[in-house]
Amino acid sequence: MGELIRFEKSSELCRLIDTLAEFSEGQENGDNAGVTRLLYTKPWIEAQYFLAETMKDAGLEVRFDKVGNLIGRLAGKDPGAPVILTGSHVDTVRNGGKLDGAYGIIGGIAALKHLKETYGAPARTLEVVSFCEEEGSRFPIAYWGSGNMTGQLDGRNGHELKDSEGISLQSAMETSGFGSGEHPNYAQGKLAAFVELHIEQGVILERMAKQIGIVEAIVGQRRYSVTLRGEANHAGTTPMNMRSDAMAGAAEFIVRLELLATRAASLVATVGRIQATPNIPNVIPGTVEFTLDIRHDNEGTLSWFCDYLFQEYEDIANRRGLALVVTPWLATTPVPMSKALAGQIEQLCGKLSLTHRRMFSGAGHDAQLFAGLCPTAMIFVPSKAGISHSPEEYSSPEQLADGVSVLASLLHELAYEEQLT
Amino acid sequence: MGELIRFEKSSELCRLIDTLAEFSEGQENGDNAGVTRLLYTKPWIEAQYFLAETMKDAGLEVRFDKVGNLIGRLAGKDPGAPVILTGSHVDTVRNGGKLDGAYGIIGGIAALKHLKETYGAPARTLEVVSFCEEEGSRFPIAYWGSGNMTGQLDGRNGHELKDSEGISLQSAMETSGFGSGEHPNYAQGKLAAFVELHIEQGVILERMAKQIGIVEAIVGQRRYSVTLRGEANHAGTTPMNMRSDAMAGAAEFIVRLELLATRAASLVATVGRIQATPNIPNVIPGTVEFTLDIRHDNEGTLSWFCDYLFQEYEDIANRRGLALVVTPWLATTPVPMSKALAGQIEQLCGKLSLTHRRMFSGAGHDAQLFAGLCPTAMIFVPSKAGISHSPEEYSSPEQLADGVSVLASLLHELAYEEQLT
Repeated sequence: MGELIRFEKSSELCRLIDTLAEFSEGQENGDNAGVTRLLYTKPWIEAQYFLAETMKDAGLEVRFDKVGNLIGRLAGKDPGAPVILTGSHVDTVRNGGKLDGAYGIIGGIAALKHLKETYGAPARTLEVVSFCEEEGSRFPIAYWGSGNMTGQLDGRNGHELKDSEGISLQSAMETSGFGSGEHPNYAQGKLAAFVELHIEQGVILERMAKQIGIVEAIVGQRRYSVTLRGEANHAGTTPMNMRSDAMAGAAEFIVRLELLATRAASLVATVGRIQATPNIPNVIPGTVEFTLDIRHDNEGTLSWFCDYLFQEYEDIANRRGLALVVTPWLATTPVPMSKALAGQIEQLCGKLSLTHRRMFSGAGHDAQLFAGLCPTAMIFVPSKAGISHSPEEYSSPEQLADGVSVLASLLHELAYEEQLT
Repeated sequence: MGELIRFEKSSELCRLIDTLAEFSEGQENGDNAGVTRLLYTKPWIEAQYFLAETMKDAGLEVRFDKVGNLIGRLAGKDPGAPVILTGSHVDTVRNGGKLDGAYGIIGGIAALKHLKETYGAPARTLEVVSFCEEEGSRFPIAYWGSGNMTGQLDGRNGHELKDSEGISLQSAMETSGFGSGEHPNYAQGKLAAFVELHIEQGVILERMAKQIGIVEAIVGQRRYSVTLRGEANHAGTTPMNMRSDAMAGAAEFIVRLELLATRAASLVATVGRIQATPNIPNVIPGTVEFTLDIRHDNEGTLSWFCDYLFQEYEDIANRRGLALVVTPWLATTPVPMSKALAGQIEQLCGKLSLTHRRMFSGAGHDAQLFAGLCPTAMIFVPSKAGISHSPEEYSSPEQLADGVSVLASLLHELAYEEQLT
């Protein structure tokens, strides 16, 4: 069964990615600060219309939905059959890279173009989407595109969400030509599968020398602020056994966190931010605040880990005479991907002679919004040094082509075969 | 031998301390931000002239030296005999307390006044000094007063030392009426002893419920900046075993420091300041910088401790794949006080029925400038909660009186007895 589609290092793929990257704030200054393409801004509008033209050139029927998601359609012979959807997001973080999001859109267009040119109309309709927003970089909301497409953000009031200049999301949406009656909502409930092609944004594939990552789950996240309060005292006149040193306590917390996280398979835990008070060399810190970022693919493990950790933290704080306050500020549950699709991708990688690895996504993606609605898959390609959200984000043309090969082969199986596996 | 002099809770002592505290920046605003009396400022000048009048009222001959140290003299019957000196510093930190420095000056004046009124002229000359500067709060130099009196800062160029407004120390000194020919240098090489009365600025006496601290040595200090460099990476997509986490490394350093310091008797070690980069919750810190403040009364122990610590730090950094840079920026050697004077003070405490404890000074004091020139002693009284350099600095009137009792009794032994012990 199935056709194997091999994309070679493609100058066309890279050219489109480079062209899309030019739709960015700061390009008129010629600076190299990376790509900044925030929701409903001028570069964003121009990028979506550029992608619409690119989709038309690929032979796709093009439409926008109500919030500005762009959809390119390759109609299937059975118009009643559920749609097979691929794509990613067109928005970026500030000073981001060329590939995050963009690769999944352009890779999807390339796959559909190749499939149409080579095999004609599929049995089932194929669509590629350029989601309007995923990063949460302009307004205090993320997944605005996929959240609206899947109906999960329907009730969200765009009037209340403001950017840093006080402009509401609704107003920005309408100014850019969306949010009114002209473009309808994306028709829901008709999806057979969603497949997202994305750069890994991590170091695993590079370090393991694998060409393709097959995502088994998108991790759940917990974020906390931890505050430890002791007594600020003179660094010279306070003996070690008379201290309530918030810094020493925080250090013990961080060491303990690392040890426990290392023991819990595939869990990651990070203290990214720390602030001591008064933060003076010759004063024992009276207060230390730090953040916790804890992620795992299993909700039970995540809950158990956090409960266990905070019990240990209480014990340590009590022993040290420190007051402990733990404030949660983010909690998302892990999202499993389709086992069936992951198995298909694994088989395709074998047939395409691409080395591969099953893995988790440590970052959130549009795919997690679809996993509850239809079989959902993610395909990763390596990121150089794991760098992302940076102008230094890079995957080689060969690596980018490998990902599109797997995507196109999978879409062929899903849309052109007689029966869905 | 010896007269025992008992000062009771003294409204006069407290009144003088309160009055001196009024010579402060910000007093015209009526705020309660503490005492700010920086070298050669208007409140400083007014404070020194207030103290000069207080000394005259106590029956002392008064003079200033070249840099603005104020000396009150109770001439002895043997004008050739070496002088017995007591006193402390008149300057403060910004928003400091009423007692740091001030207590030693006013306590010294009270002692000399009582001795003169009760016993008349001593065998040997007694002097009380109000050092112009000790804290280093205005210019980037500390011990300007005692350093000049002892000849240890003679070669220092006051033209090059500038305050935050660019005013040179020399210019500020001349504007306030010093630094020129009018006031001579303090005559050196004629000291029999130096005794400094001071608040503890620590928690030991309070926690141990002792009335008097007898200082055996002023600790030596080492200060360092430690920089750990790893790799900043995504907190979600970087597995624990692929991290070079500067924060986790710093935490291990701090825990190790505390453990080693707790094992080394009477050593204190503090991480007061920390800075992570980029300091964002969902990014593994690529760089963490922190300060080390390490103090002990024995130079050999201090050196050994630091050498041992940094060897351990190198091992930890190597194991973690972190780059380590340790930059020293302060090193002072411990200064032993006179064993003979400490013994005399201990005996006097016994006779006065004052509980006492031999201890180290974890902070620097003017006394350390004299220890190489003449027998030198320090007498501590308890500080409430160890708080100093703060408006909350406090010792009770009884505690303040106890310290003056010991000082006056010691000065009587040193200046009125036939032979120096």
